[in-house]
Amino acid sequence: IINFSSGFLQGILERLDAGEIVVGDGGFVFALEKRGYVKAGPWTPEATVEHPEAVRQLHREFLRAGSNVLQTFTFYASEDKLENRGNYVAEKITGQKVNEAACDIAKEVAKEGDALVAGGVSQTPSYLSCKDKAEVKAVFRKQLEVFMRKDVDFLIAEYFEHVEEAVWAVEVLKESGKPVAATMCIGPEGDMHGVPPGQCAVQLVKAGASIVGVNCHFDADTCLKTVMLMKEGLEAAKLKAYLMSQPLAFHTPDCGKQGFIDLPEFPFGLEPRIVTRWDVQKYARQAYDLGIRYIGGCCGFEPYHIRAIAEELAPERGFLPEASEKHGSWGNSLSMHTKPWVRARARKEYWENLKPASGRPYCPSLSKPDGWGVTKGARELMQQKEATTEQQLKELFQKQKF
Amino acid sequence: IINFSSGFLQGILERLDAGEIVVGDGGFVFALEKRGYVKAGPWTPEATVEHPEAVRQLHREFLRAGSNVLQTFTFYASEDKLENRGNYVAEKITGQKVNEAACDIAKEVAKEGDALVAGGVSQTPSYLSCKDKAEVKAVFRKQLEVFMRKDVDFLIAEYFEHVEEAVWAVEVLKESGKPVAATMCIGPEGDMHGVPPGQCAVQLVKAGASIVGVNCHFDADTCLKTVMLMKEGLEAAKLKAYLMSQPLAFHTPDCGKQGFIDLPEFPFGLEPRIVTRWDVQKYARQAYDLGIRYIGGCCGFEPYHIRAIAEELAPERGFLPEASEKHGSWGNSLSMHTKPWVRARARKEYWENLKPASGRPYCPSLSKPDGWGVTKGARELMQQKEATTEQQLKELFQKQKF
Amino acid sequence: IINFSSGFLQGILERLDAGEIVVGDGGFVFALEKRGYVKAGPWTPEATVEHPEAVRQLHREFLRAGSNVLQTFTFYASEDKLENRGNYVAEKITGQKVNEAACDIAKEVAKEGDALVAGGVSQTPSYLSCKDKAEVKAVFRKQLEVFMRKDVDFLIAEYFEHVEEAVWAVEVLKESGKPVAATMCIGPEGDMHGVPPGQCAVQLVKAGASIVGVNCHFDADTCLKTVMLMKEGLEAAKLKAYLMSQPLAFHTPDCGKQGFIDLPEFPFGLEPRIVTRWDVQKYARQAYDLGIRYIGGCCGFEPYHIRAIAEELAPERGFLPEASEKHGSWGNSLSMHTKPWVRARARKEYWENLKPASGRPYCPSLSKPDGWGVTKGARELMQQKEATTEQQLKELFQKQKF
Amino acid sequence: IINFSSGFLQGILERLDAGEIVVGDGGFVFALEKRGYVKAGPWTPEATVEHPEAVRQLHREFLRAGSNVLQTFTFYASEDKLENRGNYVAEKITGQKVNEAACDIAKEVAKEGDALVAGGVSQTPSYLSCKDKAEVKAVFRKQLEVFMRKDVDFLIAEYFEHVEEAVWAVEVLKESGKPVAATMCIGPEGDMHGVPPGQCAVQLVKAGASIVGVNCHFDADTCLKTVMLMKEGLEAAKLKAYLMSQPLAFHTPDCGKQGFIDLPEFPFGLEPRIVTRWDVQKYARQAYDLGIRYIGGCCGFEPYHIRAIAEELAPERGFLPEASEKHGSWGNSLSMHTKPWVRARARKEYWENLKPASGRPYCPSLSKPDGWGVTKGARELMQQKEATTEQQLKELFQKQKF
Repeated sequence: IINFSSGFLQGILERLDAGEIVVGDGGFVFALEKRGYVKAGPWTPEATVEHPEAVRQLHREFLRAGSNVLQTFTFYASEDKLENRGNYVAEKITGQKVNEAACDIAKEVAKEGDALVAGGVSQTPSYLSCKDKAEVKAVFRKQLEVFMRKDVDFLIAEYFEHVEEAVWAVEVLKESGKPVAATMCIGPEGDMHGVPPGQCAVQLVKAGASIVGVNCHFDADTCLKTVMLMKEGLEAAKLKAYLMSQPLAFHTPDCGKQGFIDLPEFPFGLEPRIVTRWDVQKYARQAYDLGIRYIGGCCGFEPYHIRAIAEELAPERGFLPEASEKHGSWGNSLSMHTKPWVRARARKEYWENLKPASGRPYCPSLSKPDGWGVTKGARELMQQKEATTEQQLKELFQKQKF
Repeated sequence: IINFSSGFLQGILERLDAGEIVVGDGGFVFALEKRGYVKAGPWTPEATVEHPEAVRQLHREFLRAGSNVLQTFTFYASEDKLENRGNYVAEKITGQKVNEAACDIAKEVAKEGDALVAGGVSQTPSYLSCKDKAEVKAVFRKQLEVFMRKDVDFLIAEYFEHVEEAVWAVEVLKESGKPVAATMCIGPEGDMHGVPPGQCAVQLVKAGASIVGVNCHFDADTCLKTVMLMKEGLEAAKLKAYLMSQPLAFHTPDCGKQGFIDLPEFPFGLEPRIVTRWDVQKYARQAYDLGIRYIGGCCGFEPYHIRAIAEELAPERGFLPEASEKHGSWGNSLSMHTKPWVRARARKEYWENLKPASGRPYCPSLSKPDGWGVTKGARELMQQKEATTEQQLKELFQKQKF
Repeated sequence: IINFSSGFLQGILERLDAGEIVVGDGGFVFALEKRGYVKAGPWTPEATVEHPEAVRQLHREFLRAGSNVLQTFTFYASEDKLENRGNYVAEKITGQKVNEAACDIAKEVAKEGDALVAGGVSQTPSYLSCKDKAEVKAVFRKQLEVFMRKDVDFLIAEYFEHVEEAVWAVEVLKESGKPVAATMCIGPEGDMHGVPPGQCAVQLVKAGASIVGVNCHFDADTCLKTVMLMKEGLEAAKLKAYLMSQPLAFHTPDCGKQGFIDLPEFPFGLEPRIVTRWDVQKYARQAYDLGIRYIGGCCGFEPYHIRAIAEELAPERGFLPEASEKHGSWGNSLSMHTKPWVRARARKEYWENLKPASGRPYCPSLSKPDGWGVTKGARELMQQKEATTEQQLKELFQKQKF
Repeated sequence: IINFSSGFLQGILERLDAGEIVVGDGGFVFALEKRGYVKAGPWTPEATVEHPEAVRQLHREFLRAGSNVLQTFTFYASEDKLENRGNYVAEKITGQKVNEAACDIAKEVAKEGDALVAGGVSQTPSYLSCKDKAEVKAVFRKQLEVFMRKDVDFLIAEYFEHVEEAVWAVEVLKESGKPVAATMCIGPEGDMHGVPPGQCAVQLVKAGASIVGVNCHFDADTCLKTVMLMKEGLEAAKLKAYLMSQPLAFHTPDCGKQGFIDLPEFPFGLEPRIVTRWDVQKYARQAYDLGIRYIGGCCGFEPYHIRAIAEELAPERGFLPEASEKHGSWGNSLSMHTKPWVRARARKEYWENLKPASGRPYCPSLSKPDGWGVTKGARELMQQKEATTEQQLKELFQKQKF
């Protein structure tokens, strides 16, 4: 492998059209929560104003790891969401300032390497509280104005649970004339109103998205299944689009329809589920084999996970990422260890076949997601009646409270 | 809890004498490996010269998380070790430069808060290759010269497997007149020559250490057991010293005598063993209850793990760390979530009692450490004959190769 | 609960028509393999002739445990199957003798209590080797002749993977004029030719079966799902039949389409999967709630598992089985234990909520079934080419052997 | 292997003196509980009178499986214990009748093969309630009178937690002039008064036991460790005795000092811990290699587990047990299966290396024994204050109830 970056084509679509593999970046809110700059719960990105050095450093690490796209750290940065974030954030940190700072930081770091900057929008409280199309679109348009002024390279609508809202977002973003990617945080069962993945993809492409796929909420296996359903939907509708996947870096085979938020471990006990770099290499290979060309990660993806994507696909791409100067492929940096049994780990077969132990013999291997041992009606009742477990719901029923 | 730092006393011993709890920092080589700046295998800290911004940012995160001590990133930075690190590091990056840069960065960040800077030395290849006392001491003395010139606050000899080498290190560091802490990477079975923890502690204190304990190689439970054996040894010898613990952030109940390096998952498959913040709070409480007053972490400890120590002991200390502005104690930032079953997680009892699932039903919960299903003699033969598994050793025996 | 048996109605259909719950018996081949009388692999029932006392004792134990039906131990006792059983069985032990002895033993024990005797037939090698309908029916007819001569109470066609063969069996058995039950060893995906469970049920009822359901190959959860699909199929076709379930006494959520035979643990490493009596009580309750009225077990069901069905449904039935004289419901026989923490186990909530540990920290919780990580075509190739693992198949492909 | 029984030497000691391996039998109370004849909790053997056919059949199965000794089913059959067994047993079933029937059944079955009959006594309520030596000895002497009248071949004192009581038992049994074996249900930590295993063995041999070892309460690994400590004790004391082991057929690496009774799964949720036949073969080989010559099992050992001992040691003994006519060594009876991946299981390496899955992803692999997370004093308080969990004890403390 000759170590050089591809680097001449400027636009995301030109790159994809040329057959390049685009490596996405990882998860900002989870990484920065662990570093001390984002609060779990609100998950808002005011750190772009409060602690730009921390955001800059994380962008830089993803860039070194091989990311071809730096997404502005504008997740949940819509005005309506930021208003709810609570009083731990100074009032002067307006949505506009957060979005502007996010753009500035991403653009600054992008220049250090071969990366595009993508402005990102995500689901809004306005939609969930049933505001109308015009109001929701106005929220997206406010963020878009910043992205246009800062001249990002392209736009991503991500983390949508309802295809309707995602379509509205794409429609707004398309007003810019820039390329638009759109990903939903859904599994094979489809969006929260029951629209299957194939139809979601069709609607998004019709609305103007050039790249469609999934991000967050599910692990790689589940995400790949969902993207394949999208692909089938597009093929059936004779539509063309590039495919994209940005899964969790957590093993979550036990998720229900709404993903990892319902797992009892979310968000402060997910550690035993964190994927290894070898899990990521397997994911990258599978995604590539399935025809996905925009391959990145979401919550839990740390820089070394992104490096694993870039290393797995180095043969196809012809180059390694910069951070591979500090990494031996498949553990080969262990080949000089003093212990023979550690040296024996310096090979692909070893890590590919390892079934890593949890060191937690008192813990189970799977969990039952909260709120999912019941019918849809019962779950809605749980939500309505503030029951936190099925047991509690049953007791409420028995007391004939409703 | 009133949010203010203690902050007036300058020296480590003055603080401990005054009854303060000192919160240590976390693991640099593991954290920076994941961020792309340290190579697993050599584990050397040339990043202080190559990428100072990355080292600076990690120091800053630990400081925000509550660390009262910033250790210079000089792990494995002895001249003899750096010579072996391989050709991926530029020749001009000498040991002296690495050590100097490490001091500069730590001192710069320490000024941003209420932290002391500790210069650190660790085990050397010279000792392992049987160089004599004078030669080994000369290696430590070279690092010490830099620490003196840069005027660090105190000194730490850490990660020693042989008490003999640790004593030599302490003797050199004591030449400076500064306080010295000494930690060994041993478990309850003692050092590699069979010296039990209690005797190790006695020798270290007699050599001049004011603070003794353990770091690395084992999980919190094992480390606390070992420190307790040290405490008993000191009491029996009527010696006084402060106690210190800096365990792994991995669950490793299945370790053999030489710790996590022999586990099949080391170093690239340890993810399922990573401790949660709640595991750390439990550890911090236990350490405190056992009388340990210098409480930190080693490999695997990320900033949020250090924050967990500071949060657990906030009632005793009277203040929270800065990064707690982005963290609700015991998950209370979830109390506004839209789903009742997620809101139900906003309490101490929930997280204390959670048995987190691994999401890996095809993996075991424990591993057998490599090289440890055999007698000591057989293990030495494995090392000598380059056998990587007991099976291979048996086959060699059967072929009567030796 | 008054301890008396229902006991007056003679026929299986009269009992079911009267709303009674019929408790089936458990698994003979697995239980007698462990007792030393059946050989795993052939699984044939020559023990009826060789060691009648062992067969008699097992019948008696099921009867005491609450079985209302004693199935003749004629599993795999068709002439064509017995011919293949190998030379460890004396030649004089003909199929006719095996079937006759099985009837004699069952009838003898049935008189000791309130049980019906059911003659059973199961899938044949003739069908698998593509013999025609007439030939296969002739095989069943030979067994039926014995059942008629011995005058069993009703007939069961069980353990069929192909509905076509099951229908032929039912047609033969119906020639007797006796009631016929028919169960297939299939899961929700249907029979080996892809006929879904609902259609299987419809065909079996149309062929003359009064009772339909599933037995063997899958655990209780999977079996209940499959029976529910049968129920839906019957309802859609406006057909009436009683429902029956006789699942494995092993937890097998990781099965592929062909059930537990493909699990790596089959048949000599299934121990960690064995269900507890509390698992069985849960199964019995669910089966009852779903409308199933013939509730028994298959491989792995020991007498105490059958007792658990009878105890769970004692409130509905008004009586306990005889063997409950040696069992306290929900562990209440522990209430006199000397240790308070053992006494604390003498209650329903304790056992209902216990998540029993395996004591095997080096083992996983799930397995990948052999031959199922591949497409149907690849699996057929594996069978054809004698490849035992997917890896081996891949290697064969790479060598271009086919 | 020539299939013939050793068979000419009559006495247990003559056999052992001649270098023979003696295969013991398995666990009666657990096997008969599952078959419906023994009540868990009291665990008394009145079935010898109530249901002799069931006891006879189990003896016969162990004999076929290879047992060289049939222990009379007189576990817990001392008068003082039987008095406590509760009103589910008819009054006319006196201790004398139970013991006599047990001898009759064992002797009758022993004649069917090459087996000795051993009369057994076990720990008594009299000792636990602090009766004096004379009273406790009188209890044992009552059972011994029956054994003498029925002329059993030798005697076993088993399941003693206190070496003092075991010594009294041995002293009584020695009055008979017959050989005496003595096993304790202790682990490496020694008896309930803290007497280490080595000293226990010395005391038992000095009291007259010719065979010493352990039975019950712990798994094979733990039992073998304990027997080795006994061996070392005997060697240090220059005493000679044969060694014996009869462990549980459950994996219990997580036991506390008092064994499996304190595990939360005892006695109705132990299924996932049941050992496979391959586990037993490994145990038999290890026991043999350690010099143990009386190798059997205790609770959980079913006939096929005993067969596994006899099959593993067939090369040394020169013959297979009768029940091996229904068993292919190392799964070779699968070699004719229609599926290639099942045929691939017909070999030693497959079963030796299988890590069997539990099929229970929601369960842990280890449990914390009840009553053992606390100090000895606290545990005694729990017992005294009827606290069932440590939590409850803590709450009692907090309420200052004592």
